Amino acid sequence: MEDFDMTLDYAQQATWQPVGGNVQSPIDIQTTTTTASQLAAISWRGLYQAQTIMDDGTTLKAAGKGAAYLNDRDFDFEQVHFHIPAEHLIDGVAAPIEWHLVHRSATGQLAVVAVFGRIGKPNQAFQGLLDQFTPKASHDLTEPVDLTKLLPDTGTVYHYLGSLTTPPLTESVEWYVCGDSVMLGEAQLQAYQALFQPNARAVQPLNDRPVIAERF
Amino acid sequence: MEDFDMTLDYAQQATWQPVGGNVQSPIDIQTTTTTASQLAAISWRGLYQAQTIMDDGTTLKAAGKGAAYLNDRDFDFEQVHFHIPAEHLIDGVAAPIEWHLVHRSATGQLAVVAVFGRIGKPNQAFQGLLDQFTPKASHDLTEPVDLTKLLPDTGTVYHYLGSLTTPPLTESVEWYVCGDSVMLGEAQLQAYQALFQPNARAVQPLNDRPVIAERF
Repeated sequence: MEDFDMTLDYAQQATWQPVGGNVQSPIDIQTTTTTASQLAAISWRGLYQAQTIMDDGTTLKAAGKGAAYLNDRDFDFEQVHFHIPAEHLIDGVAAPIEWHLVHRSATGQLAVVAVFGRIGKPNQAFQGLLDQFTPKASHDLTEPVDLTKLLPDTGTVYHYLGSLTTPPLTESVEWYVCGDSVMLGEAQLQAYQALFQPNARAVQPLNDRPVIAERF
Repeated sequence: MEDFDMTLDYAQQATWQPVGGNVQSPIDIQTTTTTASQLAAISWRGLYQAQTIMDDGTTLKAAGKGAAYLNDRDFDFEQVHFHIPAEHLIDGVAAPIEWHLVHRSATGQLAVVAVFGRIGKPNQAFQGLLDQFTPKASHDLTEPVDLTKLLPDTGTVYHYLGSLTTPPLTESVEWYVCGDSVMLGEAQLQAYQALFQPNARAVQPLNDRPVIAERF
């Protein structure tokens, strides 16, 4: 701010309005323009387990417990939900499905681990959720579902700062988009697609945000 | 969201607007309601140095270089500026002056270390900035100023998620408010107060945000 006539008027501060909207999600991740880092982005810490399941109108949402270190800080797992097709693109390409493992830290920082599904052998965790899902209902799971099979073991993760992808589109979300997809069965994907309409938000402008490629 | 009639309409997503404004700064830190943590919040990494100085209309701003680990992640120091009186309150009380050491990570995450000044012995770093300040001008420093004396060595730090305190009031700022103040001379404070008008934004609603008390 080199314009010395533009001094803030503190007597008018009640009229100041926060400006947002420049760091939205999802994005199209161009892998050739990411910055490599030696950081260990994700470290799963024990059991991920779904305890409740609900029809959120546009997605199956399962809440439960779990814990991870994300960039060396403690986060608690809150819920997982699904987008068909994937919301994040990798070099312009969308996977058929993407799931979001939503985490929160002690300060309330949101961090979402995004995982792409690809067609392959059936996924036990995904089947556990499908089996206990009831349309237009929300209920506790009689048998908690072990979500471990929805988590990639290792690989590249693309880390950037963005937003929720549904209203209220809150910014200040840390994204960890896993580059290596997890398999689920073709019949499983079709069963899910029979339950829900496409729910991928369009990709948003990157606006010069760096995307860091980390290993885990 | 248990209201199954409130399904999102993805055909209308162009009309979705991000909602912000609930996590603004500064705040009044009520020390009895903070949550203790064993995290080492701040670790200074070598020299903090101011290389340019400017009259920002409402504050003296000095930019330069420096590096810290904030909650175990790398941050680069960008600039320091001042608020009279302090913007953050501790149990309802404002210090006479607060400075903000603005940092940024490789992903663009903003983190501000806030330090309160109290009247005591003169501060060499503060004097170095005052001596080279030119009203209504911006220039490189002929002699870079070592900012080390503006950094507390150790103590309690209150960590919470907030915003910039001046427009555009951008949210997704990590705050590290140091509970232990740093001394500067009474004549130094008066010299600064002769240059600038009060520029403290009013405290903002906490809105259930946790404030974590960490040691460093």
